[in-house]
Amino acid sequence: MKIDAVDFFYLAMPEITTEADGSQDALLVRVSAGGHVGWGECEASPLVSIAAFVCPMSHGVCRPVGASVLGQAFEGPADIARMAALVEYDSMDLLQAAHTWSGVEMALWDLLGKVRGEPVWKLLGYRRAEKKTPYASQLFGDTPQETLDLGRAARAKGFAAVKFGWGPVGRGAVEIDRDHILAAREGLGPDGILLVDVGQIFGEDVEAAAARLPALEAAGAVWLEEPFHASALEAYGALARRSPKVKLAGGEGAHNVFMARQLIDYGQVGFVQIDCGRIGGIGPAKKIADYAVAKGVTYVNHTFTSHLALSASIQPFAGLAHHRICEYPVAPKQLAIDLTRNHITRDADGEILVPDAPGLGIDIDLAALRTYLVDVEIKVRGERLFATPDLV
Amino acid sequence: MKIDAVDFFYLAMPEITTEADGSQDALLVRVSAGGHVGWGECEASPLVSIAAFVCPMSHGVCRPVGASVLGQAFEGPADIARMAALVEYDSMDLLQAAHTWSGVEMALWDLLGKVRGEPVWKLLGYRRAEKKTPYASQLFGDTPQETLDLGRAARAKGFAAVKFGWGPVGRGAVEIDRDHILAAREGLGPDGILLVDVGQIFGEDVEAAAARLPALEAAGAVWLEEPFHASALEAYGALARRSPKVKLAGGEGAHNVFMARQLIDYGQVGFVQIDCGRIGGIGPAKKIADYAVAKGVTYVNHTFTSHLALSASIQPFAGLAHHRICEYPVAPKQLAIDLTRNHITRDADGEILVPDAPGLGIDIDLAALRTYLVDVEIKVRGERLFATPDLV
Repeated sequence: MKIDAVDFFYLAMPEITTEADGSQDALLVRVSAGGHVGWGECEASPLVSIAAFVCPMSHGVCRPVGASVLGQAFEGPADIARMAALVEYDSMDLLQAAHTWSGVEMALWDLLGKVRGEPVWKLLGYRRAEKKTPYASQLFGDTPQETLDLGRAARAKGFAAVKFGWGPVGRGAVEIDRDHILAAREGLGPDGILLVDVGQIFGEDVEAAAARLPALEAAGAVWLEEPFHASALEAYGALARRSPKVKLAGGEGAHNVFMARQLIDYGQVGFVQIDCGRIGGIGPAKKIADYAVAKGVTYVNHTFTSHLALSASIQPFAGLAHHRICEYPVAPKQLAIDLTRNHITRDADGEILVPDAPGLGIDIDLAALRTYLVDVEIKVRGERLFATPDLV
Repeated sequence: MKIDAVDFFYLAMPEITTEADGSQDALLVRVSAGGHVGWGECEASPLVSIAAFVCPMSHGVCRPVGASVLGQAFEGPADIARMAALVEYDSMDLLQAAHTWSGVEMALWDLLGKVRGEPVWKLLGYRRAEKKTPYASQLFGDTPQETLDLGRAARAKGFAAVKFGWGPVGRGAVEIDRDHILAAREGLGPDGILLVDVGQIFGEDVEAAAARLPALEAAGAVWLEEPFHASALEAYGALARRSPKVKLAGGEGAHNVFMARQLIDYGQVGFVQIDCGRIGGIGPAKKIADYAVAKGVTYVNHTFTSHLALSASIQPFAGLAHHRICEYPVAPKQLAIDLTRNHITRDADGEILVPDAPGLGIDIDLAALRTYLVDVEIKVRGERLFATPDLV
C-alpha cells in the first residue's frame, strides 16, 4: 500500500487557560493507506504543527513533513523508519518537524497494527504486555492544605502513586515548597509513592534546586522531575551527583533520541520520561526504552492528554515488567476524555494494561469531536495549503 | 517605549529547488516601538515561524511567541533578556518558538541601536570591531573537476579561505570524497584555508566519518563541519578524539545556548558555529562567544542568507580579534542580495568589517522586495490571525 492521505484535526476546549494542562487542546492525526486508517496525536501546538506539514519547501533540508510522507510506500516497520529518516534529514532545519511527525508516526503504527491484526507492542517485538502502576498526575494545590486534600483524594480513588507538579512550587521561598511537599506526603499517607514535578522552574540554577532536596528526602519522594530546562544537561548531572536518594526524572522535552540518551548519559537521570507525541513517535521511544534497560535507568511514559496518546505512550515499554510506573492523566479536560470511545481503565488492583487489540486499540469518537473541532485555513500565494477536513 | 507591532514578511525566489541553499527564501521581521523600527531575519521556515508567533495558546507553557513580545516595555538590553526568558519558559512546549524569536530578537537589537545611535556590537560591550577574514561558503561541485574549478574561482575572487559543503560528499565511496577534497585543495592552492562541510550526512556513524579523515588531513583541511546530526554529541566527541589535526566544527543547529555549550563540552568541537537566526538571536550568541573564549574554542558565525543576517551574525564576536574567520555567503540567490540596500563588502585585503553604524547598520530595500513577497493568510475559527502586511 501507499500513504494516500494525512488529515489533521485541531481540537480545543472552548476556553484555554494559562494553567500547565496540556489536555486543553489536541492535534489528532489520521493517516489513510490502502483503505485502512490509523490515528495518532501530536503533543504540540496544533496550528504550528499543521503548518510544518503543509509549508512550502525553503530548501533541500527545510522541506515540509508532508514531503517525506505523502505517497510513500508503506508495508511494515522498516517503512516507518525510512520515513522517519527522511523527515530527520530533509526537514533538519524545520524545528517543528519532530512534533508534527510524532503524531503521524503514531498513526502509522496504529494503521499497521490494524492491517496485521496485532497490537503495536507485538509489532515492536514484545511477547506480552505487562501491567503498569498508573500514577495520578495532577498539579499542586494553590495552598499546602489544597495539596494535602488532593493527595488524600487521589489515594481515595485508589492510586498507589501520585505526582504533584507545577503550581506555586519553585516560585517562592524554599519553606513554601517544603510545606507543599510535606503536605503531599501527608495526603498520600506513609506508603504512597510520591513524585514531584517542578516544570523546569529552576532554569539551570543547581543551587536553587538543591535547596529543595532536604524536603524531598524528608518526604521520601521517589523522583524530582524537570528541575531544569529540557536541554540543561550539565545542571541535571550536577544535581544528580548531589542527590543520591531522590532520583531525577526528565525527558518529556526530548524531540529526538539523542536528547533523551544524553539526559541519561550526561544528565544522569534515574527515570527517563518520553512523550511519543514529541520525540518522533513510537519508534524512537522504543529505542530509548531499550537504551534505558541497557543503562539501568527506568523508562516512564509522559502523557497528559487523551487515551489515544496514553496507549501510544505505553507501547514502547509495554513488555518491560520492571519498568512499572506509568503516567496516567487523572483529571484531563473533557475533550481528552471525549476524544476516544474506549479508555484504559484501572483494574481492581488499581493497575492498567495496554489494549490487547489491533494497532493502538483505541477507537476515536468522531461524532463527539464535532463540538471541539477548530476550523483552520492556511493560504499561501492564494493557494489553500490547508483547510480543516470534515470529521467523517 | 513599548513594542507596538511585529510584522513578518515572507520572501521567496520564484522557484525553490532542493539544493541545500538557505538563501532561496527569507523571513524578514520588523519590530516597531516608540516610533522606531528594527529589522531581523529568521533562518527558518517562514510559514511555520509566522504560525508560531500568532498561534492560539495551547496551555500555560505552550503560548505563541507574540504573547511574550507584543506590548512589552522596551528600554534596553535587559528587556530583551526578559522577553527571551518569557519566550523560553512560556513557549517551552512550542518547538518552533526559538526560530521565530530569533528574528524578533535581532530586530530588537537593531531598533535599540538606532534609538541610541550605536552599533549593536557596542551595546554588547565591545569597544571596537575587528576585521574578519571571510570565507567563501559554497557547495561542492558535482564532479571533482567542478570542485577544483570552484576552488580556483573563489581564490581568483580574492578569498583566502573557502568552504566546500554538501553536494555528493558523504553519499558514496570514500574515494569519491577523497577526490573532491583533494581537488578542493588543488583549486585553492597550497596556502588557501580549506574548510569542509558535510551537512550531517553521517548521522551518528563515527566510522563512516572517520574514514574521511585521512583525505582531510592530506588536504590540510582546517575543519570538518557537521559530520553528524546536530544533537549527536556522543558521535562528535568520539570523532574529535580520533582527529587531532582536523578540528570538528558545528553548532548551526543549536536552538538554545545549552545545545551550543554542550557541543563544546561533550562534542569537543574546535569551532562553534552559531546562527543568530536560530539560537534565539544575538544575546544567546554573545553568551556562546564568551563561552568559546573561556573554553579555548573558536567562535564562527553561520550565515548563508542576506547581509542583514550577516551583520547580525558578526555582532556577537565583532570584538574578538582572535576569532577571525567568518562565514560569508559568496553566491546567494538574488533575493538575499536585493533584500538590503547596502552590503558588507571586502576591502583591498579581502577582509570585512561589521558596519560602524547604528543598530545592525543595514538598510532594507522595501521597494526591491515587492517582487519576492509571498502572500500568506492564516485563519483560525474564521478569525484572520495573520495576513501579509504591505511593504511600506
